[in-house]
Amino acid sequence: MKSWPRVVKLELIREQFLFSYDAAEELKEAIAKKNHELVYLYSSNLVDEIWKERPKPPSKSIRIHDLKYAGLDVASKLTFLRYELEGAGSSAIVISMLDEIAWLLNLRGNDVPHSPVFYAYLVVNINGAFLFTENSKVTPEVMDHLKSAKVELRPYDSILSEIESLAVQGVNLWMDKSSLNTAIVSTFKSASDRLKKKKRPILNGETGPDAIFKPSPISLAKAVKNDAELEGMRNCHLRDAVALVHFWMWLEDEIGKGVILTEVDAADKLLQFRSEQSGFMDTSFDTICGSGANGAIIHYRAEPGSCSIVTDKELLLLDSGAQFTDGTTDITRTVHLGEPTARQKECFTRVLQGHIGLDQAVFPENTPGFVLDAFARSSLWKIGLDYRHGTGHGVGAALNVHEGPQSISFRFGNMTALQKGMIVSNEPGYYEDHSFGIRIENLLHVKAVDTPNHFGGIEYLGFEKLTFFPMQTKLIDMSLLSPAEIKWVDDYHSQVWEKVSPLLDGSARQKKHLHINKA
Amino acid sequence: MKSWPRVVKLELIREQFLFSYDAAEELKEAIAKKNHELVYLYSSNLVDEIWKERPKPPSKSIRIHDLKYAGLDVASKLTFLRYELEGAGSSAIVISMLDEIAWLLNLRGNDVPHSPVFYAYLVVNINGAFLFTENSKVTPEVMDHLKSAKVELRPYDSILSEIESLAVQGVNLWMDKSSLNTAIVSTFKSASDRLKKKKRPILNGETGPDAIFKPSPISLAKAVKNDAELEGMRNCHLRDAVALVHFWMWLEDEIGKGVILTEVDAADKLLQFRSEQSGFMDTSFDTICGSGANGAIIHYRAEPGSCSIVTDKELLLLDSGAQFTDGTTDITRTVHLGEPTARQKECFTRVLQGHIGLDQAVFPENTPGFVLDAFARSSLWKIGLDYRHGTGHGVGAALNVHEGPQSISFRFGNMTALQKGMIVSNEPGYYEDHSFGIRIENLLHVKAVDTPNHFGGIEYLGFEKLTFFPMQTKLIDMSLLSPAEIKWVDDYHSQVWEKVSPLLDGSARQKKHLHINKA
Repeated sequence: MKSWPRVVKLELIREQFLFSYDAAEELKEAIAKKNHELVYLYSSNLVDEIWKERPKPPSKSIRIHDLKYAGLDVASKLTFLRYELEGAGSSAIVISMLDEIAWLLNLRGNDVPHSPVFYAYLVVNINGAFLFTENSKVTPEVMDHLKSAKVELRPYDSILSEIESLAVQGVNLWMDKSSLNTAIVSTFKSASDRLKKKKRPILNGETGPDAIFKPSPISLAKAVKNDAELEGMRNCHLRDAVALVHFWMWLEDEIGKGVILTEVDAADKLLQFRSEQSGFMDTSFDTICGSGANGAIIHYRAEPGSCSIVTDKELLLLDSGAQFTDGTTDITRTVHLGEPTARQKECFTRVLQGHIGLDQAVFPENTPGFVLDAFARSSLWKIGLDYRHGTGHGVGAALNVHEGPQSISFRFGNMTALQKGMIVSNEPGYYEDHSFGIRIENLLHVKAVDTPNHFGGIEYLGFEKLTFFPMQTKLIDMSLLSPAEIKWVDDYHSQVWEKVSPLLDGSARQKKHLHINKA
Repeated sequence: MKSWPRVVKLELIREQFLFSYDAAEELKEAIAKKNHELVYLYSSNLVDEIWKERPKPPSKSIRIHDLKYAGLDVASKLTFLRYELEGAGSSAIVISMLDEIAWLLNLRGNDVPHSPVFYAYLVVNINGAFLFTENSKVTPEVMDHLKSAKVELRPYDSILSEIESLAVQGVNLWMDKSSLNTAIVSTFKSASDRLKKKKRPILNGETGPDAIFKPSPISLAKAVKNDAELEGMRNCHLRDAVALVHFWMWLEDEIGKGVILTEVDAADKLLQFRSEQSGFMDTSFDTICGSGANGAIIHYRAEPGSCSIVTDKELLLLDSGAQFTDGTTDITRTVHLGEPTARQKECFTRVLQGHIGLDQAVFPENTPGFVLDAFARSSLWKIGLDYRHGTGHGVGAALNVHEGPQSISFRFGNMTALQKGMIVSNEPGYYEDHSFGIRIENLLHVKAVDTPNHFGGIEYLGFEKLTFFPMQTKLIDMSLLSPAEIKWVDDYHSQVWEKVSPLLDGSARQKKHLHINKA
């Protein structure tokens, strides 16, 4: 039956700041097909009218991300950005991605849980840079830092009038419409349309106002880590491993003593051990601590009151990470504190084979991540198993634990090549509904491999491990592994021992524990 | 410097039959950017004016492809096609792909070297089917065959007037514009445009004339082989292997006796041995017989007078195949009749590891071929080597040696999933310019694998080998192989022995030769 055409206006105002331009356009098109219309509101905000008692926006101070961790000063980053602007025929860019602003300005904040970013917009043009954020968050040190990089401060809520003013100046404005909110993009576009009708004379050599829609150049620059960022990532991973040694020792003791512990208790204790490590700021995401069947829920979050008990009868999947001043961690280990079944061992071993397959991959420059995804699955596929998530995501350096543009996934759309300096997670898994979940995750740094040949005159790339923490060998069915895979396990555990044991406090017990998983 | 706009008319008439519609549109767009215009000519043919003495079109007879090889009668295939037509809202389809016509009508021809097809067009509508081909090619048996399938014969050169007439009848015509020539598509489109202006009354329930542009449904149906086709493919591969045993025996003897043989001599002798096998019709492509540096030229063709000598000092790459009445073969072996270098052995072994990696792959339903491509390259990548061609193409059953829609390639554009019943080649290689070439090629049949699990409620697929002929173990560096890879080589050679030796004439020498490569 055909329905009668009708027009329903979907009214947006605050949502203009919450939807990216691309998402809003998609919504607009989708509802247009059903004869509805998306209308932006400018005079009133429907959400404000029903949500009267809103929490205050966060107001914690912004801090400087030390140059020894950032590796590149703000002036150099701005020079790079302006070079990109000129190349694209634009004279200014507006940035709303919080991690891009934090990276570009070597600043960190506390406005978003688990991500060391702060609410802001940034406009960079050929001569200047303007940070739109709450004054109250800016300490005198941060103010000096900004001044020395010639970045001026502007009120957070003046962003739209600045955008209008850029249009009036005839600026060709670079906007990444996949991330910029629709309020900014549509403000610039309507100002631009208005001005073009008037045939404005060219001022200051500006040829616009035109919108230049291109992906942000900062996304890729941020993804490719410099030596200082890599060093920070390497170091914080070792301190993270020390916290994990303490945690697993404690957990084993408690379970051994018959103490009843919930998944939340375990996650809380892990946070305590992590917070004892120098430079610890926050967890990098909500800890996923899934016992037994909860491990099979890929994005499980244990809640007090409803969560399960950790026992020595089931597998425990623990996916967690930290924000340190020098870097970001993200590690998953799957452990059985009692006796695993043959089924659990076979599945764990095949996940491990996938993990090793990706870890050991060597591939030509310009290879998109999805090409490597099958290496992580092939061992599971051989017995008709698979997992329903990607194998790897990008990770920021003392920034968001998930970042683009690269990924390693069975979703073939992301053509971004893996490049030297990028960081990706390696986290194959297997999930048996209502029974158990397995995931093994290390972070990897994409590096050049010193191959004896360079067919095609190019470099061949591979991975350096950043994560050093034992796999539980009790869960490995060694008879399934090839000699090369057995060597990988031995070599990895030797490296873990070499790197982490010097950081332990010298008690034989701690060191032994680092080894316990080898037994 | 900006050039002045100018219009150059590129005039096409015969070329309208030589360019697919998509290719012509691409050409049109490309030259339009340079202010040129593509104009179709209808009154004269510029090529005819300069090419006066043209060879006559081929006129060999069409033959019936026996039902025991085709597996499905023409009436059933037409029923399937009409079901597809109705599903697409079309009432007729015009087909110009010669292998699609041959497959659909269970006919084979001799008009194109190496491909058992004949020049024709086919129009199928809901009630009838019309084959446009030269009467002289149609024997009384073929005429009876067509009649019993209710296919009517039409003159080859009446296709355009038939297309006009379909438009007049108001038919919605399914056309695959990637393969149909632009003469047919533009004839239908202009007739359709003309008729629509006249607001023709609806006749016989037809709602057109509209062009329905969709990929041909026959391409996929043809790619998925039935049991009879698979049986024919299996059988002809064994006879092909017997011819290859005779050939390699002969070659080794001649070289041993110091006879000077060119690459062309070798290819000719191979053809002779193949033609002694029952059901042999033709080679399935020009034999690639490349000695030494010629092996590094991927599509090398030896020419009498200029080609190289086959010696026991260099690698010989031999890529060849045959058209039999029951199937099509395509096999590449790389052999050294003397002592290979360590470099040649390492490269051969890594190509072999890639070959084994793909051969042994198991993967979920709905996996496009490109996902598997990296399995065939990873061993080469580890030492910085690669090859610049795809790993696998589809192969017809007693039809074209290259067919779509599936492929296994680093080119990520082909999203066609590998499906049960498809045939693909597995042919990784490595080519060292000016030195040697290595390729190892078997044909594989995509089959369901009896996995112990079926995660996602789907089937997991793998490969059955169709090609059985030894690899030269002299070229394998066993120290590089894993135990599983060594087992693969042993198992494969046992299967070769088991399947091929009963077909040899009983002389101990032949059987020994089949084994020689194992020594």
